[in-house]
Amino acid sequence: MEGNLATATEGQPLRCKAAICRKPGSPLSIEEIIVAPPLPHEARIRVICTTLCHSDLTYWNLQVAIVFFSFQSFQILDIKSVNKVSPDNSPRILGHEAVGVVESVGEGVTEVKKGDLVVPVFLSECGECIDCKSSKSNLCSKFPFVFSTGMPRDGTSRFKNLKGETIDHFMFVSSFSEYTVVDITQLTKIDPAIPPSMACLLSCGVSTGVGAAWKAASVEPGSTVAVFGLGTIGLAVVEGARLCGATKIIGVDINPAKHEIGKKFGVTDFILSEESEDKSVSQIIIEMTDGGADYSFECVGKASLMEEAHASCRKAWGKTIVVGLEKPGSKLSLNCTELLIGGGKSLEGCSFGGLKPKSHVPILIKRYMDKELNLEDFVTHEVQFQDINKAFDLLTERKSLRCVIWMDK
Amino acid sequence: MEGNLATATEGQPLRCKAAICRKPGSPLSIEEIIVAPPLPHEARIRVICTTLCHSDLTYWNLQVAIVFFSFQSFQILDIKSVNKVSPDNSPRILGHEAVGVVESVGEGVTEVKKGDLVVPVFLSECGECIDCKSSKSNLCSKFPFVFSTGMPRDGTSRFKNLKGETIDHFMFVSSFSEYTVVDITQLTKIDPAIPPSMACLLSCGVSTGVGAAWKAASVEPGSTVAVFGLGTIGLAVVEGARLCGATKIIGVDINPAKHEIGKKFGVTDFILSEESEDKSVSQIIIEMTDGGADYSFECVGKASLMEEAHASCRKAWGKTIVVGLEKPGSKLSLNCTELLIGGGKSLEGCSFGGLKPKSHVPILIKRYMDKELNLEDFVTHEVQFQDINKAFDLLTERKSLRCVIWMDK
Repeated sequence: MEGNLATATEGQPLRCKAAICRKPGSPLSIEEIIVAPPLPHEARIRVICTTLCHSDLTYWNLQVAIVFFSFQSFQILDIKSVNKVSPDNSPRILGHEAVGVVESVGEGVTEVKKGDLVVPVFLSECGECIDCKSSKSNLCSKFPFVFSTGMPRDGTSRFKNLKGETIDHFMFVSSFSEYTVVDITQLTKIDPAIPPSMACLLSCGVSTGVGAAWKAASVEPGSTVAVFGLGTIGLAVVEGARLCGATKIIGVDINPAKHEIGKKFGVTDFILSEESEDKSVSQIIIEMTDGGADYSFECVGKASLMEEAHASCRKAWGKTIVVGLEKPGSKLSLNCTELLIGGGKSLEGCSFGGLKPKSHVPILIKRYMDKELNLEDFVTHEVQFQDINKAFDLLTERKSLRCVIWMDK
Repeated sequence: MEGNLATATEGQPLRCKAAICRKPGSPLSIEEIIVAPPLPHEARIRVICTTLCHSDLTYWNLQVAIVFFSFQSFQILDIKSVNKVSPDNSPRILGHEAVGVVESVGEGVTEVKKGDLVVPVFLSECGECIDCKSSKSNLCSKFPFVFSTGMPRDGTSRFKNLKGETIDHFMFVSSFSEYTVVDITQLTKIDPAIPPSMACLLSCGVSTGVGAAWKAASVEPGSTVAVFGLGTIGLAVVEGARLCGATKIIGVDINPAKHEIGKKFGVTDFILSEESEDKSVSQIIIEMTDGGADYSFECVGKASLMEEAHASCRKAWGKTIVVGLEKPGSKLSLNCTELLIGGGKSLEGCSFGGLKPKSHVPILIKRYMDKELNLEDFVTHEVQFQDINKAFDLLTERKSLRCVIWMDK
């Protein structure tokens, strides 16, 4: 009935197709796999569609094994010292931006049921820990995000191939598969009226950008905003800042075409960063805003741009939010005296835009349904699952914002 | 009547004694000077007592000329290229922590009048600019703080010696003189009931520390706080955190004697930083606080400690406030990925603890008069003005917190 190889039987292993990453940077191979039934606190999901986020590309290309031990520190481990991380990140099922339908649930699960439309998110919201109960955090401390090869509770995988070889998870979602298993703390049940390709965008990238402006920065009406990098996340920050009532939204990119694209979301001013030879981008922004932006966002993942973003912010209350993921081990540097005399000018990061998945994704969906939030313009391409490697090519060549990958359409 | 050489005549130049810095790092020489009458928007002040703040020591020792051009950037200039900065910072009247009585006011001045008790502060509060009107800033944009050799409005000096040589100002206060001239935007009229030696402390250091906890960080009741460096400013942060209701206040210092001293202000736990060989101070704090402090303060002015302070803060809502002044040009570095996954864990600086001088110093005075704010324990020594160099020795040898220098007692 789903038009694929799956024999969907609750409580039983299920056979379906998945796109497997076997070698960093090489095309994914579509193979048949076996997806185990969900354990307690888990649900097995039939993926409707998925998209390719830049973090997938980063970890697809990565040659070294990484483990985030905690939110306080992380390490790049020697491959031989790692047990639970695949030696070269493969075989692994990437993908973490998706929407799907619950196929079956583990023992005792009542939060979602078969047939529910759900958005999986790499962050958990257990609802019970100090962080989930605080309005100041979206970083669940019961199930903190770590780069793991398995499920959040027991670290084991629900995937194997037909030869019995274990296949790793990615970011607790692994959506490049017709079926996947996700912990219920990471599933948000949503209004089935929203088109799947739109809901899918809210699973990571667009929520991250909109949330960065809305929740992480709390952009105030009438404020000035500078956004470094107008990829999907940067454009989503622009969209979020517009929804928050920012009146001047300065986009910064190396691609001049991003000026017109940016206008669709709310960019009011544009700086082509490569053209500014005499002045730094931060100097230009300080002049444009009479002292610096109220908020700046780094959406590329480049240490030097994080420094520029911080320098472009106003003294006393300027707020710089780092949204982009740099290479592990990279450092940014700040002048101590400038930091001191900048007063309350602050620097911070955010994961998933500071949003609590279950609490805030439904609000974004409502704002889309109410025709306030622009999601359509993020979808530049659509492909069938068997053509998933085209989505990688498009993003690598910077031709796409979001390419929706349909599992069965 | 003032028991010094002054012939206090309103509108006339006035002769008195001042401690002059003629050579970096060498003892100040007490000389007779002429203090010009105040211009419009200025008041001439008879200093009752002054104290030595660490910034005086820093700039007393400094061999290079520095100009802060603005709050966005600063430069160390080649000596020959500088006009308005003394080539080796001398002759100059240091001192910026004081209390005094208005001797006379410039034309049109109505905010203060002869006989008022006033606290001068290096920061202005004009009350009219966007920053003064905002509750989020204490960095007046009409008269931004710059390291200048003169007065804030015209850059000229009100001091000369008996040979007619111009003597420079310091931080717009220059309190190591029996009389000085200060802009009215930097004068706070206070309740004359407070003992001068207590009021004096609120002119810079103690206000900076208490303010850092109260206004810059907004420490919440029940929170955990880590303070790096228990000098006067660090101890004042402890005092501020205690007044804000923090329940765990961890002091960090290289001097074991600071444990007992810290208890007088509210230190509940102490880390002797040199003893922690196996673990970094931040690791110890993370363990003591089950994930990191809610607030951390760097009160030494050392880039590596700023990094440790940031590392010791909790994910999601930990707030690190840099209070210490590092050497010009020093940089701190942060791991980009740790910044990102730290979420709303933030880093910022503060000047004068985020306090608006005129708005907030009177509140601190009231809290002292109400016996809530401990000021007495900051005064460890008292000297007469002619012995001012003893105050420098005591602070250099780390034997004092605040040494009150009485102009005439």
